[in-house]
Amino acid sequence: MLPLLTDDAAVACCSPVTEGVLTADEAERIAHTFKALGDPTRVRLLSLIAASDDGEACICDLTEPVGLSQPTVSHHMKLLVDAGLATREQRGRWAYFRVVAGALEQASRVLRP
Amino acid sequence: MLPLLTDDAAVACCSPVTEGVLTADEAERIAHTFKALGDPTRVRLLSLIAASDDGEACICDLTEPVGLSQPTVSHHMKLLVDAGLATREQRGRWAYFRVVAGALEQASRVLRP
Repeated sequence: MLPLLTDDAAVACCSPVTEGVLTADEAERIAHTFKALGDPTRVRLLSLIAASDDGEACICDLTEPVGLSQPTVSHHMKLLVDAGLATREQRGRWAYFRVVAGALEQASRVLRP
Repeated sequence: MLPLLTDDAAVACCSPVTEGVLTADEAERIAHTFKALGDPTRVRLLSLIAASDDGEACICDLTEPVGLSQPTVSHHMKLLVDAGLATREQRGRWAYFRVVAGALEQASRVLRP
């Protein structure tokens, strides 16, 4: 089964930051997404995956460009997946990742002034 | 002097996350902005400031809505100012803050798929 690329539950909840006072719950959900984006390695990993053939990257191809061990990269990817910004599919020995365009779009929308 | 509302140095540097592999330097700058946004209190503070009269809020009016002490709110605001997402102006006893719309717009653009 293909990963669901339109899953944007992460920030689908929320009005834009500049469009009225956010509730504590909305702020919590928005911050969760941005916390995942608040690390340079994770930002690079998203750009590496998005730039891969067919928009999909094997964990085995992500370690070298960021210069980190596979467990460390796996940990960063887990945070991105938990935040809804990437999907993970296990195929045999390797995990494959895709960027969730809908979640990036939602996060982008929340910041639009 | 009015705060410079078009200051977008924070992420003006950077191409969108999904438009090619980011350099380590670009990823660092992008992550710095999103780290500042990766906290629910700071997200709420931005929305409170943006929703204030004339888009400006006194620190004295921000503590009660978020239920935190003034030093804690000041600390959160410092991180937002350092990331270029807000400006601070001291007038007499109080500091006044504004959201930097240009910085939010840049951060939004970086995430646009």
